[in-house]
Amino acid sequence: MDIKYVGSGTRYSRAVIYNHVAYLAGNVAKEPGPTAGEQARMILSQIDETLALCGTDKSKLLTATIVFTDMRDFDAVNEAWDAWVVPGHLPTRTPIEAKLLTPRHLVAMQVTAAV
Amino acid sequence: MDIKYVGSGTRYSRAVIYNHVAYLAGNVAKEPGPTAGEQARMILSQIDETLALCGTDKSKLLTATIVFTDMRDFDAVNEAWDAWVVPGHLPTRTPIEAKLLTPRHLVAMQVTAAV
Amino acid sequence: MDIKYVGSGTRYSRAVIYNHVAYLAGNVAKEPGPTAGEQARMILSQIDETLALCGTDKSKLLTATIVFTDMRDFDAVNEAWDAWVVPGHLPTRTPIEAKLLTPRHLVAMQVTAAV
Repeated sequence: MDIKYVGSGTRYSRAVIYNHVAYLAGNVAKEPGPTAGEQARMILSQIDETLALCGTDKSKLLTATIVFTDMRDFDAVNEAWDAWVVPGHLPTRTPIEAKLLTPRHLVAMQVTAAV
Repeated sequence: MDIKYVGSGTRYSRAVIYNHVAYLAGNVAKEPGPTAGEQARMILSQIDETLALCGTDKSKLLTATIVFTDMRDFDAVNEAWDAWVVPGHLPTRTPIEAKLLTPRHLVAMQVTAAV
Repeated sequence: MDIKYVGSGTRYSRAVIYNHVAYLAGNVAKEPGPTAGEQARMILSQIDETLALCGTDKSKLLTATIVFTDMRDFDAVNEAWDAWVVPGHLPTRTPIEAKLLTPRHLVAMQVTAAV
């Protein structure tokens, strides 16, 4: 079985596919808007794009880890999440609160998907 | 290969099974007791229940991530853990300290298991 | 399919191999030096050792999660990381900031690899 690298830079790959699973890198918003809800929507659209590059889509998600920098953003991020996921094809979720690379980044998401 | 969803709600699934692996959602105690030790025991019993729904059990764990809100709870949580795991079938572990959804939740666990 | 345990102690295994994937435990430096860069180099060498025990190596990494206790260590840890990874075989990465077991531990890493 081959390992397939998607969107490799010099430090990490945007996704790695192996044995029918796509592992995506943790994503923060590329252009972080002022609210966690906006950032969540941007992240989910970045994830859509990466899943497409992997030959899969959000209806095949397996897991999601969501890093909140402030749990008070929980509802705003969930609003974006709930509008995005495919009913009947819901991944598992693990929410935690942690800090991210810069204070401008309010939320990050990491997902895996079946390919 | 099909993706099997276990205990799906409107936001996420309690577990997702794919390619012989069950990915469980991060668990906090449903009725959080006052100590991290009690919460850990409740979480481990919730995990037992979900693993059973997945057709597997704790002797087939692959990985565990444990989120402590306060590393001073390390020993109390480990006491519950040590009494629960199956000798000779120990998963890998990654402990981190982070905050959780509410201050009442002192510990969370996320596991994967072979099916 | 069998589950293979590598370096099992009484609480967790150093690695677990299942269905062509090695899941390694989260690693902190066994003898934590004073800087995050030194600790990162020690962790990466511990990971090399464990990957070898699993019959694989760093050219087959799939994912990496890096826990920084202080994001100001980002560049120092990345210097160690960049010198270690194999160009063209880059795993995905998820960096977060969280506390670890003791204040002496400045960085932790958890990886998975193809076997």
